[in-house]
Amino acid sequence: MFGPDDLTDDGFLGGRLRVWQPRRGYRAATDPVLLAAAVPARPGQTVLELGCGAGVASLCLASRVPGLHLSGLELQPAYAALARGNAARNGLSLTVVEGDLTEMPKDLRHSFDHVIANPPYYPAGGGTGAADPGRERALREETPLSLWVEAAVRRLAPRGILSLILGADRLPDALSALDARMGSTVVLPLQARPGRGAKRVILQSRKGGRAPFRLLAPFVLHEGAQHEGDRDSFTPAAAHILRDGGALSQGLC
Amino acid sequence: MFGPDDLTDDGFLGGRLRVWQPRRGYRAATDPVLLAAAVPARPGQTVLELGCGAGVASLCLASRVPGLHLSGLELQPAYAALARGNAARNGLSLTVVEGDLTEMPKDLRHSFDHVIANPPYYPAGGGTGAADPGRERALREETPLSLWVEAAVRRLAPRGILSLILGADRLPDALSALDARMGSTVVLPLQARPGRGAKRVILQSRKGGRAPFRLLAPFVLHEGAQHEGDRDSFTPAAAHILRDGGALSQGLC
Repeated sequence: MFGPDDLTDDGFLGGRLRVWQPRRGYRAATDPVLLAAAVPARPGQTVLELGCGAGVASLCLASRVPGLHLSGLELQPAYAALARGNAARNGLSLTVVEGDLTEMPKDLRHSFDHVIANPPYYPAGGGTGAADPGRERALREETPLSLWVEAAVRRLAPRGILSLILGADRLPDALSALDARMGSTVVLPLQARPGRGAKRVILQSRKGGRAPFRLLAPFVLHEGAQHEGDRDSFTPAAAHILRDGGALSQGLC
Repeated sequence: MFGPDDLTDDGFLGGRLRVWQPRRGYRAATDPVLLAAAVPARPGQTVLELGCGAGVASLCLASRVPGLHLSGLELQPAYAALARGNAARNGLSLTVVEGDLTEMPKDLRHSFDHVIANPPYYPAGGGTGAADPGRERALREETPLSLWVEAAVRRLAPRGILSLILGADRLPDALSALDARMGSTVVLPLQARPGRGAKRVILQSRKGGRAPFRLLAPFVLHEGAQHEGDRDSFTPAAAHILRDGGALSQGLC
């Protein structure tokens, strides 16, 4: 477990969400917030987050859409405890189950309207490890991406929607992992700045969907051609999501 | 064969390329020109075009890069004859072989520095056919896209580059068809107008490439939010390619 000195207290969505995060572990930035903003969930629906960490994506979604039934699966007990504490602290409801997505815990073996995930970015085996083992586990793919997708698809109800945020370089692997049960897939490229290649993508796909694949216009996070000192340069559309807690309305599903 | 009344005489690259095309068959527009502009071929290299039709892509490439050794494979004899005539007419060298990419003719069973293709857009089986059988064959996928990719990969020399232009909805199929021999894949989305989803993509991949997949910033063809009467609204970057015969320099391979 994390002690008080191991944690920082961070604000998300313009401060309306307060989250404890490990000082040296995996630290959420914009990715889980953008993921949550993209999920077209309606009040009363069920949502499962695979690998929920400290809970930022699920809690952002809960704070935008009232009346959701949210469950999170987390492999690392210390992060699971943190997610529970963060939910309670914000008065939001999130059921966190400890376990491995390749052996889905019995409590989660039912179907969900939405499955969401922000899987680890770096393929297994490559590069040097992060110094912190929890951070390493959150960033380094020990379970192949195809198994994340497979576990997610299995948990989706008919017409249920999968939402993933991924490093753009993982897009071919993710698309290849979608089997014939999934369709109406859309990819939203996330550009740090106008004219740049995509660093991240949000991928959404519907179980039983039949519409053709679509590649959307990129969503641009920052204004201007380069970073200007400490000046916050979010585009109005990005600020609407990251500060005002708005939805990402770019025609997903 | 086409008779004189079956053909139109069209200009490409600002008129520097004159091409006979079937009046009612498959008619090249911007796609083969953009494909040719994206191919990073150097003088002296060998290039194979699968399904060359009347030869527009190969001839655009020949007119931009001198000293290439270009071969085209074409299933339909009337189009093959047209491609030969178009090459001769423009003083460009293009060897056209009639045959099926699933049974590669012996004359083409060697390796190439580049393989390029503008495969049919519409999957087999769906929709109503085009009235013209040659057009139907050029537009309708009778050979699955995966076999186009497989035939292309087999013909590439080590470090050789595959360049495809595709309907954006075919991107998942094309990526899934790239096997472990291919890498350093890049995808360039082609947007009709700023802020729109991609209608087409250019996909490039290198045999033996090891770099991660990249999703580039979209290339925008037209200026403004919508079509304005007859006014030609190409962006300067698109006009540079379509009228001046320039290269598409957007960091491919």
